[in-house]
Amino acid sequence: MPHHCYLNGVIAPVENTNIHITDLGLLRGYGLFDYFRTYNGRPFQWDWYWERFERSARLMYLPNPISKDEAYITVMDLIKKSGLEDCGIRFVLTGGYSADSMKMTHPNLLIISEDIHPVKPQEYETGIKVISHEYVRDYPEIKSTDYKHLMILQTNIKAAEASDVLFHKDGFISELSRSNVFVVKDNVIATPDTQILKGITRRYVLELAKENFKVEERSVTLQELLEADEVFTTSTTKKVLPITKIDEVTIGAGKERNVSKFLLNSMNEKLKTW
Amino acid sequence: MPHHCYLNGVIAPVENTNIHITDLGLLRGYGLFDYFRTYNGRPFQWDWYWERFERSARLMYLPNPISKDEAYITVMDLIKKSGLEDCGIRFVLTGGYSADSMKMTHPNLLIISEDIHPVKPQEYETGIKVISHEYVRDYPEIKSTDYKHLMILQTNIKAAEASDVLFHKDGFISELSRSNVFVVKDNVIATPDTQILKGITRRYVLELAKENFKVEERSVTLQELLEADEVFTTSTTKKVLPITKIDEVTIGAGKERNVSKFLLNSMNEKLKTW
Repeated sequence: MPHHCYLNGVIAPVENTNIHITDLGLLRGYGLFDYFRTYNGRPFQWDWYWERFERSARLMYLPNPISKDEAYITVMDLIKKSGLEDCGIRFVLTGGYSADSMKMTHPNLLIISEDIHPVKPQEYETGIKVISHEYVRDYPEIKSTDYKHLMILQTNIKAAEASDVLFHKDGFISELSRSNVFVVKDNVIATPDTQILKGITRRYVLELAKENFKVEERSVTLQELLEADEVFTTSTTKKVLPITKIDEVTIGAGKERNVSKFLLNSMNEKLKTW
Repeated sequence: MPHHCYLNGVIAPVENTNIHITDLGLLRGYGLFDYFRTYNGRPFQWDWYWERFERSARLMYLPNPISKDEAYITVMDLIKKSGLEDCGIRFVLTGGYSADSMKMTHPNLLIISEDIHPVKPQEYETGIKVISHEYVRDYPEIKSTDYKHLMILQTNIKAAEASDVLFHKDGFISELSRSNVFVVKDNVIATPDTQILKGITRRYVLELAKENFKVEERSVTLQELLEADEVFTTSTTKKVLPITKIDEVTIGAGKERNVSKFLLNSMNEKLKTW
């Protein structure tokens, strides 16, 4: 069945859903989004995602045109229409149509069901390579649509046979382009707590980790990553995925990666009955 | 007559022109634009705008799908269809439609005719107020669609009864949200030369200025602006517009603003026969 899209109250097949060219998300980058997936047909951590979506909207001065209950009903309808056991759901909120490409009147809200693009299973074994890039995301705490740096760096990422980019600034790391970063040394787990988008999977993994390990939310240096036993990244589609190479440096050579394996297995186990 | 829009080779009324919701400009902020206006029905400094548009596209790794000649024919057709003596023309180039909201295949190019929104005539007398904000635009040399900071600051701009925002960082100014900045002290004109989008009107005004004044392209401090005889901004729609207040500081109180008046008059005079 085709995926469907809610746009300002109307649900239609994605392939037939367009927005007018005066949208401020298109013309002025005035837009934010959120993305989650379902497990067993049920949105994963809906309350947490909704809270973050509302927070992004507030910080960006975009009035949220839908209530939580109405959004949930819409999401469940889109999931059902997808005909899939599990799918991804994307919220996109923009400044809406503008007569002078500047003044906002009514925001545009899109809610879209999508195929999930999971990580290749072998990447959980091999880990991924990332390139480093000096930058802190603009308004990192907002899940805005601004992915210029990632898009511009695609050529470098491909040339390095890497999967993603790791942002760092003044010696401190923040995040990958679309996911959070954790470092493990001597069974202690650390992850940055500022200059990042606080991921939902980050939050979930932190809860799991705190039950079993010493966990520190604090500033983390790039050097710590290069000397770590394990480095891993967390996101909705990646869950807990090892990073085994940063630029040309191999991370934790010969180590077992017991911490990330434990966290991934724990998460997968819990998700069976989500 | 309605304005028209060119989208990937097809020209249609603006009101009927939509893009599909998988456009990477909308979903990932992967887009750039340019904007110019006509005088006497003729595009102002077409060669310079085209050069900048091509440069932005190259720096953003967006393949430009149209030749200069074809673009010019399209622009002239849109101007004619507008039925207006003079109009604005906006180019928008995005990463195009993407099946997984990440991979680019073909860019989308829009060329749109628009009404011009000129400055209110009295603002050339009173000047405008701006608020200052510590920030350097991301990839300032690219005319990307990223105006998050301006949109988010709208509330502050309105509350201060200001017109725009002046970006500065570490004591040095760069630009307003959509225009360049010049400072005048003792008949010497200075304007920043790095961390800015090099405006076409900036370039035009620099040529005019160099014929008549000492001109310096160099780093400029915020403090210089606060102590200046005159501060003015240049852009396609503003031409040469005085800035008379920065936050709560009045600029050049009691001074005649002879330099900006001279440059505006020179420009207006030349434009009569553009």
